[in-house]
Amino acid sequence: MPIKVENLHRLFDPRSVAIIGASKNPGKLGYHVMKSLTEGGFKGGVFPVNPKETELFGVEAYPSVADVPHEVDLAVVVLPAQAVPGVIEQCASKGVKGIVLITAGFKEIEDEQGAELQTEMARLADQAGIPIIGPNTFGMANLHAELNASFTPEFSQVKKGGISLISQSGGMAHMLAFLAMKQNVGFSKIIGVGNRCNVGFAELLEYLAEDESTGVIAMYMEGVDDPRRLMDVARSVRGKKPLLVYKVGRSEVSDKASRFHTGSLAGQYKVYQGAFRQTGMLAVTSLEELLDTAKALDLCPVPEGNRAAVLSGQAGPGMAACDVSEERGLVLTTFSEETQERINVALPPLALRSNPVDMGPAWYSPEAIAEVADAALGDVNVDGVVLCIAYASANIGAVDALSDVLKGWASRKPITCCLSAPGEIWREGIRSLEEAGVPNYPTPERAAAALGNLWRYRSLAMMGS
Amino acid sequence: MPIKVENLHRLFDPRSVAIIGASKNPGKLGYHVMKSLTEGGFKGGVFPVNPKETELFGVEAYPSVADVPHEVDLAVVVLPAQAVPGVIEQCASKGVKGIVLITAGFKEIEDEQGAELQTEMARLADQAGIPIIGPNTFGMANLHAELNASFTPEFSQVKKGGISLISQSGGMAHMLAFLAMKQNVGFSKIIGVGNRCNVGFAELLEYLAEDESTGVIAMYMEGVDDPRRLMDVARSVRGKKPLLVYKVGRSEVSDKASRFHTGSLAGQYKVYQGAFRQTGMLAVTSLEELLDTAKALDLCPVPEGNRAAVLSGQAGPGMAACDVSEERGLVLTTFSEETQERINVALPPLALRSNPVDMGPAWYSPEAIAEVADAALGDVNVDGVVLCIAYASANIGAVDALSDVLKGWASRKPITCCLSAPGEIWREGIRSLEEAGVPNYPTPERAAAALGNLWRYRSLAMMGS
Repeated sequence: MPIKVENLHRLFDPRSVAIIGASKNPGKLGYHVMKSLTEGGFKGGVFPVNPKETELFGVEAYPSVADVPHEVDLAVVVLPAQAVPGVIEQCASKGVKGIVLITAGFKEIEDEQGAELQTEMARLADQAGIPIIGPNTFGMANLHAELNASFTPEFSQVKKGGISLISQSGGMAHMLAFLAMKQNVGFSKIIGVGNRCNVGFAELLEYLAEDESTGVIAMYMEGVDDPRRLMDVARSVRGKKPLLVYKVGRSEVSDKASRFHTGSLAGQYKVYQGAFRQTGMLAVTSLEELLDTAKALDLCPVPEGNRAAVLSGQAGPGMAACDVSEERGLVLTTFSEETQERINVALPPLALRSNPVDMGPAWYSPEAIAEVADAALGDVNVDGVVLCIAYASANIGAVDALSDVLKGWASRKPITCCLSAPGEIWREGIRSLEEAGVPNYPTPERAAAALGNLWRYRSLAMMGS
Repeated sequence: MPIKVENLHRLFDPRSVAIIGASKNPGKLGYHVMKSLTEGGFKGGVFPVNPKETELFGVEAYPSVADVPHEVDLAVVVLPAQAVPGVIEQCASKGVKGIVLITAGFKEIEDEQGAELQTEMARLADQAGIPIIGPNTFGMANLHAELNASFTPEFSQVKKGGISLISQSGGMAHMLAFLAMKQNVGFSKIIGVGNRCNVGFAELLEYLAEDESTGVIAMYMEGVDDPRRLMDVARSVRGKKPLLVYKVGRSEVSDKASRFHTGSLAGQYKVYQGAFRQTGMLAVTSLEELLDTAKALDLCPVPEGNRAAVLSGQAGPGMAACDVSEERGLVLTTFSEETQERINVALPPLALRSNPVDMGPAWYSPEAIAEVADAALGDVNVDGVVLCIAYASANIGAVDALSDVLKGWASRKPITCCLSAPGEIWREGIRSLEEAGVPNYPTPERAAAALGNLWRYRSLAMMGS
């Protein structure tokens, strides 16, 4: 029986959670899962299950899930592999709607018993119609529900936002989440698929495509079991929500490692790339590009075309942004006569006033730089803007000067920025811009690449329509 | 008369500094320069020059540089362009050894008068043998001398280290410095060449090649006036100190902008690339790559060969590192039998134990992961190691467990890391590793690219020998 999307809704948005294998020993994953669930702000019921304890983390514990005197929507399981089939039967009897199975030691191990256990477990779960995230996963977090069903309490610190991550590696999901915390990028769900018992990329895509709090779906992929099914689902999502994918295995040795690690079909990097393109999935080649692009897709409108304007506070960052813009398929547009006239009036003759525009000479005139930005954003020949300014103490007012104009255009045209300053300087201004839909990046190259990828997404989406 | 390198030594390491055009008005650059010099910790004499003030920032001010009753080694000039030739004559009479000329409005402006002023000024400076950094620059900072002769007080917050930057863009130099602050990368000198009156890339390379506190020279370049001379100097530095260069102008539009901005020969990106390769300069293509590579070259020994080992705390980051390693010309080595045996003993069979090595299954055994790292680093078939670990609360001890082994090998083989954790976790451990010569990066891809670039530098240096 295939897993129904409704059951996944309940799994990710449970009213109550049982932790089967909860522990008070920090050397056990069951301890860290309890910590995540009790400290993460989850408002529903939390029921530790451990036959040796009566209480854990100040919460009453139960000998088995059957003994919990309430309904249990989600069970997080951290018991040894051998105990898992029995636990699934108990969960089925209890009416549990979904399981996060953190336990490792199934088909990824050399011992045949692991594969047999996984088959048995899948049979029991399918019979009961219970979707299982895992096994061999860190778990998952639903930030909007303040649910952290993982062994990493720090996931609760990730900001709420519209990006949902499906990751085939716990390590990569953690690294992405830590980058997101540092760069203030918001997530909806962080999901470790692990070894995919009955819930893989395809099932999660179907669910997330319908999930209202997910605006962008980002994937880290090593290899999939059923590429046809994934392609079918991706096609059905095309044009509705952006699908981003970072697939490793470009090199022979990492391809081999990925087969070993996930026990799935890896290989044929180019074949995967072709499939992604055909089905409208946007492929990226690094963890930072995955995050940068997802952030832009979550915050910005998609550009109508590839005509970009580069505005900068100093000439150098503008040139760096131009190089990357052109490499990423953007065209540095020619401004309309009217726009050019407005810019020429705002800036002195010694500035670069065509495209890229160097606003440096107008540092002391907030009105002038606001006028330049408004002129460029309003130009019918401009589909998106890259804006790069390095702080120097004399231009400290630049972000405030531009804020209203950028916010005013943010819902109509994509604007990607590199507003670069030390310490706390500009931090509030940048945060407020990001809340209004204007993402900021650490370098001009990354700001330009983000706009380029918005355009790449747009072309992929159009190809399918 | 060509500028002598001795004079540059005094310019960058002055006993006293006059600020000609110092101001108490925060709307003037002369204010910010005063702030940089008085708050940056400089131990030498600071003499503001302003005919309208008797005191500035609590320091006695003088009507002209001639009136300063002490020797003046360095003059920082922030007066309007028209006043500059006169000031240079005064500096010559006073015996000033070097000038940082922040003033803009010379050959970069459309008005012919700007070019004429610059010619006149260059004639006077050359006559007196005074090297001039600028005009049209933010200035420079010598971190080891606690000298901040720029209009950006925040440069003083950059950590002391071995990287010296020569930048043809103030914006890019600022952005690089802000990235360095966030990532705790240490610098020796940060220099904005501006419009190059009589000190350009070639002169600064000659100086920095001899400068003891400079271990790596990083350049941001738009275009040079005398490529032959630069190539000659680069050849003479080859094999002595790493020269890194980020040249913009890959795209036509940014090439055009760079000609306009710096008034110099830009163009012919590929010609430049050929010249860099021939003379042993390592070319990079982004600001982050410039910083990442400079950091690795500053901290690590250069690898003897291109045989890499990838060790990771989780399989995914290891695969990402492998992909980039191979793309960057590294070869994932086969361990010696002895090494493989040591790793097989340390790790359980369900782990990836060849190369890449997944140390994940040994999370709870600090001795085992230390043994794996020591075995890999000691292998005669290994020239360098990429190490990637994502924090999860259960492996919080990983950095401590590895620290002694990594520090023990750091001076013999390059080790580039991505130790990724949220907030303060691992921060001290990472800092202590970096002090011992083990650089850390935000992602596995950037750690692998850094090792790849160390190897690329090594091959370029060898080609010249």
